[in-house]
Amino acid sequence: MSQSHDRMDRLRRRLGGIAYGGDYNPEQWPEEVWDEDVRLMREAGVSMVSLGIFSWAMVEPAPGEYDFGWFDRVMDLLADADVAVCLATMTASPPPWLARLHPETLPEREDGTRLWPGARQHYCPSSPVYRERATALAEQVATRYRDHPALALWHIGNEYGCHVRACYCDVSAEAFRRWLLARYGTVDELNRAWSTAFWSQRYGSFEEVLPPRTAPTFRNPAQRLDYARFSSDELLACYLAEREVLARVTPGVALTTNFVPLARTLDLFEWARHLDVISYDSYPDPHDADAAARAAFGYDVMRSLRGGQPWLLMEQAPSAVNWRTRNAAKPPGVMRLWSWQAIAHGADAVMFFQWRQSRGGAEKFHSAMVPHGGTDTRTFQEIRDLGQELAALSSPAGARPPQADVAIVMDWHNWWALELDAHPSSDLQFLGAALEHYLPLYEASVACDVVRPGADLSGYRLVVVPNLYLVEDGDAASLEEYVRNGGTLLISFFSGVVDSSDRVHPGGAPGPLAPVLGLRVTEFWPLAQGETVGLRPDGSGALWSEELRLDGAEAVACFDGGETSGRPAITRHRFGAGTAWYLATRPDPATMRRLYDDVRREAGVEPVLSGLPGGVQARVRRAGDGTDYHVVLNHADEPVTVRLPVPMRDHLGKDGPTDTLRLAARGVALLTADV
Amino acid sequence: MSQSHDRMDRLRRRLGGIAYGGDYNPEQWPEEVWDEDVRLMREAGVSMVSLGIFSWAMVEPAPGEYDFGWFDRVMDLLADADVAVCLATMTASPPPWLARLHPETLPEREDGTRLWPGARQHYCPSSPVYRERATALAEQVATRYRDHPALALWHIGNEYGCHVRACYCDVSAEAFRRWLLARYGTVDELNRAWSTAFWSQRYGSFEEVLPPRTAPTFRNPAQRLDYARFSSDELLACYLAEREVLARVTPGVALTTNFVPLARTLDLFEWARHLDVISYDSYPDPHDADAAARAAFGYDVMRSLRGGQPWLLMEQAPSAVNWRTRNAAKPPGVMRLWSWQAIAHGADAVMFFQWRQSRGGAEKFHSAMVPHGGTDTRTFQEIRDLGQELAALSSPAGARPPQADVAIVMDWHNWWALELDAHPSSDLQFLGAALEHYLPLYEASVACDVVRPGADLSGYRLVVVPNLYLVEDGDAASLEEYVRNGGTLLISFFSGVVDSSDRVHPGGAPGPLAPVLGLRVTEFWPLAQGETVGLRPDGSGALWSEELRLDGAEAVACFDGGETSGRPAITRHRFGAGTAWYLATRPDPATMRRLYDDVRREAGVEPVLSGLPGGVQARVRRAGDGTDYHVVLNHADEPVTVRLPVPMRDHLGKDGPTDTLRLAARGVALLTADV
Amino acid sequence: MSQSHDRMDRLRRRLGGIAYGGDYNPEQWPEEVWDEDVRLMREAGVSMVSLGIFSWAMVEPAPGEYDFGWFDRVMDLLADADVAVCLATMTASPPPWLARLHPETLPEREDGTRLWPGARQHYCPSSPVYRERATALAEQVATRYRDHPALALWHIGNEYGCHVRACYCDVSAEAFRRWLLARYGTVDELNRAWSTAFWSQRYGSFEEVLPPRTAPTFRNPAQRLDYARFSSDELLACYLAEREVLARVTPGVALTTNFVPLARTLDLFEWARHLDVISYDSYPDPHDADAAARAAFGYDVMRSLRGGQPWLLMEQAPSAVNWRTRNAAKPPGVMRLWSWQAIAHGADAVMFFQWRQSRGGAEKFHSAMVPHGGTDTRTFQEIRDLGQELAALSSPAGARPPQADVAIVMDWHNWWALELDAHPSSDLQFLGAALEHYLPLYEASVACDVVRPGADLSGYRLVVVPNLYLVEDGDAASLEEYVRNGGTLLISFFSGVVDSSDRVHPGGAPGPLAPVLGLRVTEFWPLAQGETVGLRPDGSGALWSEELRLDGAEAVACFDGGETSGRPAITRHRFGAGTAWYLATRPDPATMRRLYDDVRREAGVEPVLSGLPGGVQARVRRAGDGTDYHVVLNHADEPVTVRLPVPMRDHLGKDGPTDTLRLAARGVALLTADV
Repeated sequence: MSQSHDRMDRLRRRLGGIAYGGDYNPEQWPEEVWDEDVRLMREAGVSMVSLGIFSWAMVEPAPGEYDFGWFDRVMDLLADADVAVCLATMTASPPPWLARLHPETLPEREDGTRLWPGARQHYCPSSPVYRERATALAEQVATRYRDHPALALWHIGNEYGCHVRACYCDVSAEAFRRWLLARYGTVDELNRAWSTAFWSQRYGSFEEVLPPRTAPTFRNPAQRLDYARFSSDELLACYLAEREVLARVTPGVALTTNFVPLARTLDLFEWARHLDVISYDSYPDPHDADAAARAAFGYDVMRSLRGGQPWLLMEQAPSAVNWRTRNAAKPPGVMRLWSWQAIAHGADAVMFFQWRQSRGGAEKFHSAMVPHGGTDTRTFQEIRDLGQELAALSSPAGARPPQADVAIVMDWHNWWALELDAHPSSDLQFLGAALEHYLPLYEASVACDVVRPGADLSGYRLVVVPNLYLVEDGDAASLEEYVRNGGTLLISFFSGVVDSSDRVHPGGAPGPLAPVLGLRVTEFWPLAQGETVGLRPDGSGALWSEELRLDGAEAVACFDGGETSGRPAITRHRFGAGTAWYLATRPDPATMRRLYDDVRREAGVEPVLSGLPGGVQARVRRAGDGTDYHVVLNHADEPVTVRLPVPMRDHLGKDGPTDTLRLAARGVALLTADV
Repeated sequence: MSQSHDRMDRLRRRLGGIAYGGDYNPEQWPEEVWDEDVRLMREAGVSMVSLGIFSWAMVEPAPGEYDFGWFDRVMDLLADADVAVCLATMTASPPPWLARLHPETLPEREDGTRLWPGARQHYCPSSPVYRERATALAEQVATRYRDHPALALWHIGNEYGCHVRACYCDVSAEAFRRWLLARYGTVDELNRAWSTAFWSQRYGSFEEVLPPRTAPTFRNPAQRLDYARFSSDELLACYLAEREVLARVTPGVALTTNFVPLARTLDLFEWARHLDVISYDSYPDPHDADAAARAAFGYDVMRSLRGGQPWLLMEQAPSAVNWRTRNAAKPPGVMRLWSWQAIAHGADAVMFFQWRQSRGGAEKFHSAMVPHGGTDTRTFQEIRDLGQELAALSSPAGARPPQADVAIVMDWHNWWALELDAHPSSDLQFLGAALEHYLPLYEASVACDVVRPGADLSGYRLVVVPNLYLVEDGDAASLEEYVRNGGTLLISFFSGVVDSSDRVHPGGAPGPLAPVLGLRVTEFWPLAQGETVGLRPDGSGALWSEELRLDGAEAVACFDGGETSGRPAITRHRFGAGTAWYLATRPDPATMRRLYDDVRREAGVEPVLSGLPGGVQARVRRAGDGTDYHVVLNHADEPVTVRLPVPMRDHLGKDGPTDTLRLAARGVALLTADV
Repeated sequence: MSQSHDRMDRLRRRLGGIAYGGDYNPEQWPEEVWDEDVRLMREAGVSMVSLGIFSWAMVEPAPGEYDFGWFDRVMDLLADADVAVCLATMTASPPPWLARLHPETLPEREDGTRLWPGARQHYCPSSPVYRERATALAEQVATRYRDHPALALWHIGNEYGCHVRACYCDVSAEAFRRWLLARYGTVDELNRAWSTAFWSQRYGSFEEVLPPRTAPTFRNPAQRLDYARFSSDELLACYLAEREVLARVTPGVALTTNFVPLARTLDLFEWARHLDVISYDSYPDPHDADAAARAAFGYDVMRSLRGGQPWLLMEQAPSAVNWRTRNAAKPPGVMRLWSWQAIAHGADAVMFFQWRQSRGGAEKFHSAMVPHGGTDTRTFQEIRDLGQELAALSSPAGARPPQADVAIVMDWHNWWALELDAHPSSDLQFLGAALEHYLPLYEASVACDVVRPGADLSGYRLVVVPNLYLVEDGDAASLEEYVRNGGTLLISFFSGVVDSSDRVHPGGAPGPLAPVLGLRVTEFWPLAQGETVGLRPDGSGALWSEELRLDGAEAVACFDGGETSGRPAITRHRFGAGTAWYLATRPDPATMRRLYDDVRREAGVEPVLSGLPGGVQARVRRAGDGTDYHVVLNHADEPVTVRLPVPMRDHLGKDGPTDTLRLAARGVALLTADV
């Protein structure tokens, strides 16, 4: 970690402020375009580009034959222009010759369908051949550019697991058996963990074990859960194999890889330990009314992965993407607004996919910093304006947020387990549940961290636990301890159900959470599609209801009507010096908002700024010198006036300090107190 | 049959009354739990459990190595507690070693996707290896427990065809060719039956024939129909292979296997000949308003399969299941109500899946008699109450219903053929059609049998024939004879279309049914989705219309509006001493109810009890001594008062005989006349 | 072409007038039925039948063993009855022995699923074995019947590509590599065309190239586009291999193959060059309100494929088909009305699938000229009446339409490219777009031709270009030249985007169409599902909007509301002596109709007949002697009165010449001026 700290210091010094730029794929263009590229980068305030992500087939046109000449020229051009390079190991998409020589490197779906070349990421994560070729290439790249002045940061692979979340081929099966042997030691232990006494699934030896391939009906859930773990680990092993090379060849250069928009595939808490800095690709949908809230939650996760350390927005779209059914453009001002939102949530880079819009290939309709239409376009002009704005700024780069009042508990193992099949209701999804709890906090401009179960919670006034289906005893104890010591806990239904092997806790839900919640769940009553159930004193619930038996908790709201009428729906338990809330249904949004108002009031949770108009969001980052940078974002399509608690100076505006901030539609302010 | 009769006598003596219990899977629990299990079983009135269904991998951990010790202990414990055992042959789910040693035992879908281990039922029904291993195991089990006092009934396999309705692998192809050779003798006969002159499909030899695998477009329907027959037969052959062993080793022990909720897969009329007693698994959905009627129809089928012989409700859920999208709990009282409904329709057992709720595996959220929450739960209490109620009862076990007035014609061959593709409308489904006709009879508490085409119909006042697309000449003659002799027949559209090889009858629909119906169908006019057509004098039709030419029949209702306006929609034909009705559309439910009122009045069909309030259903079983046991079920959520024709005593209540029965919401009465 | 002309002359002399008949499959029936068939054909005015389409397995029951005896008898019977034979080469559906001997002839889907025998068309189009067997059979058939008096026309294969649009097997992969080598010469050129610098897809040699099989994400679009070209070409090669045999053996007999209802699979402009006459299968859905318009557009395409030459309606349904989800019957009169519609649009044959309705197989519920119900049916009577009507007629056979005012531009390469994935909106479909433009012209009885890009446009007053996403520079120049010389051009959005390798034109849309349109598209703004945007002065747009920068064009309508409010939505550009219109959204139908009224008025486009009532459509064909045959079709369900410009005689009616034509509901008139 100390080495990592040094590497990050070096990177920060190199970048100076908020990094600005995008993916640069010069191999798609003749060399004469490169000069214009560099000129326009300077005009647009570009300080860093991601280079070489898809260059494998060009730099290694045949196995072991390398052609770096053209790449040298690009590196030199960028160095001359003082554009830092986030240099890819180039291993994200193998060249066609690999599949031809080694068809066994191609991944297979659970139904045996082979995934062929023609797109990208067509490799089995467990393939020894792929890993050998990839690390050999990484070694070449590292050795060649170890001392190049453009090199600022390593970009290992790209969007691991984006398209191939898991492979089910025979090579993977062999690797899975090794992984299981390491995890369980004996086949008896495996049988116990997987509950193989059920359905006659007992294994006599590891050799009999297979990936959870297509089967006649519901597959063993513990096997599937372990396969999710294994798949995350195998992709991580790919990353680590390259990281090992780079750390050896260039020990002083920081390392990262870019994570895709919040997804189930990788256990990012585990991955984050092996990166020097988190990188994130964020693609909110302009057609989605909740896009900004959804994005904000992802940013809070990224910032939290390494304890508040600033992260890099490695990719976002200048305007539309190309992979949705209908790909909306970002209206004027939105790209800037959402870029600042990332900064508000801790980003130290604002980067895009990609620099120049492709003429051909599968992403040619993905917007780019330099569109097909060239520089005389709204997109380029907004890109240039933002780049210049950031470059001119005494920026909040490096600043971290002050201690947040609220933590949301999240766990990839729970996510995997929660979304297995054969559950009481297949409508339960982690991300949706998390967002339901995040929204009322987001709308109130309350800062949130995201923590894994078992984290130190002592600094938080409120801990929110959405749908923690899988919970281990130790983690439950940690939550209990937190409340006993005065904390406020809010847990939603279908939590505390199973252990890490997807075995129901003895006595059923909420398992080890029962003491702190002061209740038992005696039966789940999932609702039909579209069904709602009344709540008393007011509101309604959807999706879920259940039969509670209170053992210390009090009912704050009850079901009203139907079979569960009169039974508790929302409970509160005074426990030790603290309070634990429980939701046995999904309240409608208005009820959820009122509930959070009450919970926050009781817990003493404060927003970043009070009294903000609807649609206005504020976050704060605290610089090393103690300066608080408030970012205020107007997500509304109308101008608003914001009353500030003290006169503040807007670093993005022209006026002097004021306590009455006027924000244009989609406007942004970067405020510091007028000291 | 006489041997079967002896075996059933012995079983009935052993069980005494209505058997009560569930699937018991002790291998999922440490031995210390077994003692508590047996204690709770006694408390809950459990008289029989199904044992060993998924024990293969535990009793034969490696090929040919058997470990029965632990199973002995369970059998002894149950014998000591006087709990009878419905003992499984343990062959429902092969252990992992089988797939490893013999991957060719794994089934394949029609698109070639292999179905792997990890769930259950992953065997090709035609696999000689699977059958050899399964019968060897059955021999071991039978030999070991032939004289064990707990052994009461054999449970062969489990839910045959539930997940793998058919296999399309090369082993199956070979078996299909043998089956075809036996059926057709010569390839010329095959070509004729399959209409292979169409689309150049003529076979030169049996060796060229394949299962109906995925093809460029609609596959040969006769080939698919024969594949459905073959698949039912191959699963039956698996059953018979084990049955042969058991019948040899324990000639005095009754044999059964449990059928899944009414499904297309198996020709149960054929299967029923080879069971001593029918067993049935029933899983009505509490979210479904028609759940009880749907279940009742299934029960009538089960009772009818062996001519009114009582059957065993082998599995139902104590509360929720786990395999629907949203799994509703059974509200209080519903489990008892629906259990009594099964008894009312002829069940001599009320059993559940499963005894103790699993901690792990794919069915851990399926409710059980002993829930995760233990005995201090609503579910266990309702289970115990019902068990005690049944145990205390001078029960109607063994009693059969008196002669029903109504028979509904059903045929698996027709079901298979009706739901083939490339039909005038793909909305035609047998089960939905049957239910449309069953509902008005069910609501009026009219008892129905279910018979196959060609059955003796002389005892019935009304015979209902929903969508008998496939009808053979002999079966049509039987219906004609029935009407000629004074019977009332009601046939719905798209009947009499093809013969047993899915060849249209000469002259088209209704083929050999034309004389008795007194009409010809000159053209089908399927309606668009959501389209309805008016009926005169009132009502409307949906789904279907057609152009009739009457030849003796009279129009009772006509189409009103659209292209068929004025043409007959419902017809009646006085034929011989009887009457034949025909429906050329699907009337709306209210019109259907009025129609059935008219038809019943004409035919002299009587309900079990008259003048019942809405939502109340009555059925009767007649004991050997002539006592009529009336079961009256209140499906409504409100209490009702029922006027009885004579004073009756309620064996489940505390009051004396009365002619004014008060039933609680979801209440049940078991009545005998007060003699 | 001159040879082709001679062959067509011979065919026309043979047929005399409008050919009438259908597919005849005598092998499905015993020989005694054949006599009745021929008798009924004469009664029904049948002049030609398509014979032998699925006879392969019957005439070649084993490889190389031919049995033509039964077929000889059919041919002789038909010759005796003076029924011409459109003789199939019998190669559409290989017999089962081919797949058994050569499983590698079976096609594979892109996910590797093999398509097995049991339906039809189960051959890989690139299979050398299939082609060898097919041409051998064609040689046998041709040699045997070269001089048979019944032989009138060759029917090669059948509905090429109907069910297997492309095959992805290893044999196809090999053929694809050869095709690419021929197209590109060098792998460098391939890399350039396919933009393989993107996503590391650069090929080192042709050996590395594969079909675009299932891949982790979006596959290379240029690879997919070329695979569509290759697949059309491979099917064409199958056709040409047989054609070569027939042209050699029977140089004087015309050749055709029947195209399926307008589909994306085959580049018909390319195919049309190799047929002597176009044949078309048309299956409008009676449940579809736009069925007649949709069909009319297909007919205009067919007529246009060979420059206005009359074409053959080779298949239509006498009433219902069997392959839709719900197969509506054709109401009385509709079969005649739609048959005459085909004639109005240039058909010289009215034929059906099939003569006698099958008893078995996958199409037994497809209506036929002789239904299951026999001759005493509405269907047969309408068939016979139409046959006699046509036979009695001094028909417009051979007549071509006069020069149309309007041309619609269509291109299969564009169609393939437009419907690739990863586009701004996946709602863009060529056929739907074309129909939106065709409808207002169709409703106004304006005659349209359909031309490929680059065609000679000088004769047209208006050229309509729907969604020409793919446009090459030369084709754009041709459109520009057309407008410069005074033409009126109307182009809809998302046109001029890419070149023939799916590479975006430099500067973006509308690429080389920018000068003539006088605008640039700076950004696409696809709308959300169901979203509409207002238009000023009136109307609304759906599906799409975009940001235009005008460079000479004027805004005729603007967006009203939303982010694009005030920006141009419909533009007009005076260019040279002509005018070019552009639509940046999809106007609602009423607005589209008003727009077309305006454009037509400006361009001087005239309907075939003016002042027709709603639902009435008119078309005209001009005979060699200059006689104009007007066909007037009343698609409404009510009778109408039509004012004619001059007194005309109705060849289908009984009354004398009139200028006030009364048409029954679904009535037809065939008019000539009363000279």
